[in-house]
Amino acid sequence: MLPIRLDLSLPDWVARHVAAWPEHADDRARMHLVLGLAREHVERDGGGPFAAAVFAEGRVVAVGVNRVLPEQNSLLHAEVLAIMLAEKHFASHNLGAADLPRLELVSSCEPCAMCLGAILWSGLKRVVSGATRADAEQAGFDEGPVFPASHRYLEARGIELVHGVLREEAREVFDLYRARGGRLY
Amino acid sequence: MLPIRLDLSLPDWVARHVAAWPEHADDRARMHLVLGLAREHVERDGGGPFAAAVFAEGRVVAVGVNRVLPEQNSLLHAEVLAIMLAEKHFASHNLGAADLPRLELVSSCEPCAMCLGAILWSGLKRVVSGATRADAEQAGFDEGPVFPASHRYLEARGIELVHGVLREEAREVFDLYRARGGRLY
Repeated sequence: MLPIRLDLSLPDWVARHVAAWPEHADDRARMHLVLGLAREHVERDGGGPFAAAVFAEGRVVAVGVNRVLPEQNSLLHAEVLAIMLAEKHFASHNLGAADLPRLELVSSCEPCAMCLGAILWSGLKRVVSGATRADAEQAGFDEGPVFPASHRYLEARGIELVHGVLREEAREVFDLYRARGGRLY
Repeated sequence: MLPIRLDLSLPDWVARHVAAWPEHADDRARMHLVLGLAREHVERDGGGPFAAAVFAEGRVVAVGVNRVLPEQNSLLHAEVLAIMLAEKHFASHNLGAADLPRLELVSSCEPCAMCLGAILWSGLKRVVSGATRADAEQAGFDEGPVFPASHRYLEARGIELVHGVLREEAREVFDLYRARGGRLY
């Protein structure tokens, strides 16, 4: 029987987590929320130590955590889920559409090759990340074929990329994952 | 209300289409099936003119067609759906696992930047494509930050990339899409 349906979900606790953090005035505040999500995700043994959120002028629209292991789906990076769920929220495949608020993606780690492509296709125009590629690699995670030219390609399409916001706190989430014996995959 | 669920699906006709094509002995036969899927998808006005399938030693395990427009989800490229559904079929996030048959992805067009990353994370070790990047761009579709180094990166991880199988037939699907007034996005 050919599979034709996918039911994907985030755990219920993410909504409670977000509701408990009402203020996201600037990049650091938004990253603080995202790193809190990543930390709770790790503490609950929910999967890889990554989280992301799409914000509309400081309000959380959608979030994602890495669901590769629990969903047995290698594409379910935090950014992928956050973008797909934000597009569902707005009923639009274009998060850069003129009739939407200005949206941005905040990710606990620099997006990998797949997620950079996903960001480009989503129409998002601003991406803020915490841990760097080197941090991810040191923690045992691969970023794939991302080159300086990849970032320049996105920037040439009008996408602002902000790196290293709360980087030390972001690295601590990787440390926590390793300390708890989290699986590399 | 924070969105936490995604229900994604392929149209029912894809299963009938696949069932009608029992033999997929070699790359050309497999590509013929995939281009047939892409063509029927375009004829049904189902979305962007792209299809893909995961094969296990010539048997179709999962397929995908581009569902960006009908699902309002910019990440639903044909390859993304085929990979996610194949992983669901095998209940594994690793399509290169030693206990699985040898799997390969056949795509009507060279994978974009996002899909190349997705292929890397899926563990697939062989990818066959039809239309080239130049063909896609001529038809009005972007491939994103894919460089010669991107392909070399995957090849260095043991992934075989075969390009241009039934390229002319693959281009004809783009022509059909344009002739029917298909939307660029």
